[in-house]
Amino acid sequence: MSSAIALVEVGPRDGFQPIGPHIATDVKIAFVEGLYRAGLRRMEVTAFVNERAVPQLSDAAEVLRAAQLLPGLAAQVLVPNKRFCHRALEAGASHIAFVLSASEKHNQNNVRRSPAESVEEYGRLVADLPGGTRVRLNLATSFDCPFDGPVPEADVLKLLDALIPLRPGVEVALCDTTGRVTPDRVRSLFERSIRRYGNGTGWAFHGHDTYGLGVANVLAAYDAGVRVFDSSFAGLGGCPFAPGATGNVATEDVVWTFNNMGLETGVDLGSLLEVSMRGAEIPGAFSGGRVRNALEGQRCVQALEG
Amino acid sequence: MSSAIALVEVGPRDGFQPIGPHIATDVKIAFVEGLYRAGLRRMEVTAFVNERAVPQLSDAAEVLRAAQLLPGLAAQVLVPNKRFCHRALEAGASHIAFVLSASEKHNQNNVRRSPAESVEEYGRLVADLPGGTRVRLNLATSFDCPFDGPVPEADVLKLLDALIPLRPGVEVALCDTTGRVTPDRVRSLFERSIRRYGNGTGWAFHGHDTYGLGVANVLAAYDAGVRVFDSSFAGLGGCPFAPGATGNVATEDVVWTFNNMGLETGVDLGSLLEVSMRGAEIPGAFSGGRVRNALEGQRCVQALEG
Repeated sequence: MSSAIALVEVGPRDGFQPIGPHIATDVKIAFVEGLYRAGLRRMEVTAFVNERAVPQLSDAAEVLRAAQLLPGLAAQVLVPNKRFCHRALEAGASHIAFVLSASEKHNQNNVRRSPAESVEEYGRLVADLPGGTRVRLNLATSFDCPFDGPVPEADVLKLLDALIPLRPGVEVALCDTTGRVTPDRVRSLFERSIRRYGNGTGWAFHGHDTYGLGVANVLAAYDAGVRVFDSSFAGLGGCPFAPGATGNVATEDVVWTFNNMGLETGVDLGSLLEVSMRGAEIPGAFSGGRVRNALEGQRCVQALEG
Repeated sequence: MSSAIALVEVGPRDGFQPIGPHIATDVKIAFVEGLYRAGLRRMEVTAFVNERAVPQLSDAAEVLRAAQLLPGLAAQVLVPNKRFCHRALEAGASHIAFVLSASEKHNQNNVRRSPAESVEEYGRLVADLPGGTRVRLNLATSFDCPFDGPVPEADVLKLLDALIPLRPGVEVALCDTTGRVTPDRVRSLFERSIRRYGNGTGWAFHGHDTYGLGVANVLAAYDAGVRVFDSSFAGLGGCPFAPGATGNVATEDVVWTFNNMGLETGVDLGSLLEVSMRGAEIPGAFSGGRVRNALEGQRCVQALEG
């Protein structure tokens, strides 16, 4: 199994999406470029979605165009259905991330479809993609649903049975949408999935740090054989209606941890931290992660501390 | 191996110690009582140390006296040497936690002794303890030193070889003082220690969440067979000179995680959260942890979130 770790920076999509005040398009592009300069070579740069539902990403086409000027950057865009996939393709997208949820209620809430209907939509979507288009499946609520709680592994495996044959070889991201899953369950589902479908299909883990388990769950997925991880610079992705509910696991926390384990991510932590410091200051943003602040406080030693 | 988990609440010592503004003694006692009511039955309630170095804990005798009125509470107190151990015993302490550091520089900085000299001091200390006194060894910088970086496993094992025979059967806490150790190294050192000395001696893990690995490291120690964990309510223990550098792993984060793994800690999360909310509001305190805020934000669901 390859030990090469690939981080997919999702801040420009998952991180910016919930921020209320509009981020100027050139500012978004500057962040994408800064993250690229830090060494990130995979990014979910935006989403093609209902602009009324997610006004922050209404400049998807411009951000994508700028990202595609960066040599060697795999710039994926999120789409919820075939209609928005066509918009993405018209805008020049060559790497599509299709999102559906494992849980009925979350999928209905997100895309007004049952998971089974989203599987059919995915089938129609991949049926007439231009040759050479890269596809990724983002399976939200693969572990836990904000409405229904824990999602049975059998439900996820049943969905994968229906999804994977529709386009063999796509990368599948199992997503902990709520941040409530514990590492034992992350390891278990990935081990079962990899046993069932092999590790030829790329597997990815997308986790949130809402309950402080962001890095713990990344490491559990790593133990199970996963080598692709979504993360968000400055831990962006928190919910504006719940300041305490931090968002995606912070890219700098993941890079710092793998570095300290002697594992290479291709990312320069120092350059990333500069971008993350600025990211945490975006008006209306709720940042997360620990490493940013901890490295500021390194000088601190407490007498008699255990 | 027992699966029963015991949490040692260290907030009243490790958490209060770095707080500048003096916390009134009756307020400290109210926190100890609140934590006891939440179900915590082991606590490091204070330290007997140089009052000029740690003025916050100058009321150690009164806090200890109040804690010992709580039925079934194992109230341990930290001591750095034999002289302060006698003060603790005079104050009625029956459960002593002796602290030394595995790294030369940190031990010199803390107690003005080499680790070897602290081993001798520990030998003198345990030589004439009253019968029935419980002893715990807190081995600071067992993984990483703020001055020297990573601590070799061999150095720790060499110290344990010298320490454990001086009073067989004491509980040994291996402490990640800086919060910089990664779970792979936590698992490795505990596995080697337990192989070498058996698990009859109680082993404990004391971790910090400074870099976001607090719970990840607790779970790594759990995987290695450890069942005793230090934690601090509200994640208290941050350094006043580095607001970002959060302190001990938060008790509520550890309880929440073990609960979600179906493991019993004996602590009522709801009651604990009420105490932790108040703890986070202590003037001058730097709190940490995620679960406190996350549970406030549970209602939040993001459209199209992966």
